[in-house]
Amino acid sequence: MTSPAPATRAYRRLSVEERRRQLLAAALTLFAHQPPGEISLDDVAEAAGVSRPLVYRYFPGGKPQLYEAALRSAADELELCFTEPPSGPPTERLSRVLDRYLAFVDEHDAGFSALLRGGSVAETSRTTAIVDEVRRAAAEQILVHLGADRPGPRLRMMVRTWIAAVEAASLIWLDEGKQPAAQELRDWLIDHLIALLTATAATDTETAGAVTALLGLERAEGPVGVLARRVVPVMDDATRLL
Amino acid sequence: MTSPAPATRAYRRLSVEERRRQLLAAALTLFAHQPPGEISLDDVAEAAGVSRPLVYRYFPGGKPQLYEAALRSAADELELCFTEPPSGPPTERLSRVLDRYLAFVDEHDAGFSALLRGGSVAETSRTTAIVDEVRRAAAEQILVHLGADRPGPRLRMMVRTWIAAVEAASLIWLDEGKQPAAQELRDWLIDHLIALLTATAATDTETAGAVTALLGLERAEGPVGVLARRVVPVMDDATRLL
Repeated sequence: MTSPAPATRAYRRLSVEERRRQLLAAALTLFAHQPPGEISLDDVAEAAGVSRPLVYRYFPGGKPQLYEAALRSAADELELCFTEPPSGPPTERLSRVLDRYLAFVDEHDAGFSALLRGGSVAETSRTTAIVDEVRRAAAEQILVHLGADRPGPRLRMMVRTWIAAVEAASLIWLDEGKQPAAQELRDWLIDHLIALLTATAATDTETAGAVTALLGLERAEGPVGVLARRVVPVMDDATRLL
Repeated sequence: MTSPAPATRAYRRLSVEERRRQLLAAALTLFAHQPPGEISLDDVAEAAGVSRPLVYRYFPGGKPQLYEAALRSAADELELCFTEPPSGPPTERLSRVLDRYLAFVDEHDAGFSALLRGGSVAETSRTTAIVDEVRRAAAEQILVHLGADRPGPRLRMMVRTWIAAVEAASLIWLDEGKQPAAQELRDWLIDHLIALLTATAATDTETAGAVTALLGLERAEGPVGVLARRVVPVMDDATRLL
């Protein structure tokens, strides 16, 4: 250890678990705002105010291990965003979930983008597995709010394709300098889900049953009511096709 | 060169370009049906009936170069699938595009899945760029059929999220043993697009204008008419919200 005495004293003040958390927090902040290829262990050591050997003592696997640990920690944080009490109008519950999700995307912008775009130097089968686990958790939570305990294949596919659409929209949103406002994007994504549920209900009886039950929980001034009133004139144009 | 004389003679029969195409075709067939991690240069040499040094002579960069060339060739083939004359009902044009796309997914199943799932050993920033180029080409073609020459941000985002949803649905379809039938999946994906257009038209004037023009090109017995008739009873449930 060649670190100066004051730093050495500072190390002693933190427990192993506290130090690990501190290093991880420093790494997560860096990985959130820059692509992983641009971050070195020295950057993490500097951000945490410790020496490079100390970072290696906690993360002997170096940058890949630190990146994976930071991703694990971000994934846990994101999964917490999905938790929402299962009461009240379902589209309003999902709007709150999307608000938290978009705030997470906003806060981890460059790291989120680098991770989901693929081809990243830090991407491995293990980081891909973590991302997939988050997607599965999101799908499960959405199905809870749609009142589908044991969803059939079409409803599951519908939810998973909507999650893919939300991810794609988030990446485009980041590319376009976070335009439009997060709230406008959230409203459009909820409209997207309502439209998808309606179209899927048209050919899948299980989804039709879920939609009937969901409609009973919605309010006229909520997202479904607002969209339904706005869609009426669009549908009028299609009258000759009926 | 330690290859036996007959093989050497066979090499001479093909021109450089023909040999390159033959090696690429062998590689593409292998990469289409197995994850890239499971394929070696020896496998490619064996499938093409040539020696390993010959493969290296054409692809000095080894497996990464061969994989990238095979991907390039598959991407060109896929982009051709998107070409469709801009006449007739737009949803019927896009149905034909989707039929060709799903046939491509069916034919390149394991390779398609490994590539799009990320975390693949063969994934690099260059392979990611090829995939992104295909997505851009798909978006441009779809916008042509939607009659949007200079689309605004919302319509562009809508098309790109739909493409993401199509990709996600294709991966789920492969995971589930290609169930349901490709034709059923295609119809649902078209319904998905119609629903998305309708919901987006509700809040975006540019999309609303495009939808009005599109409806004039649709037939009552086409996808829009069929979906509209099926959605009416679903919408009836929402009457109290209007």
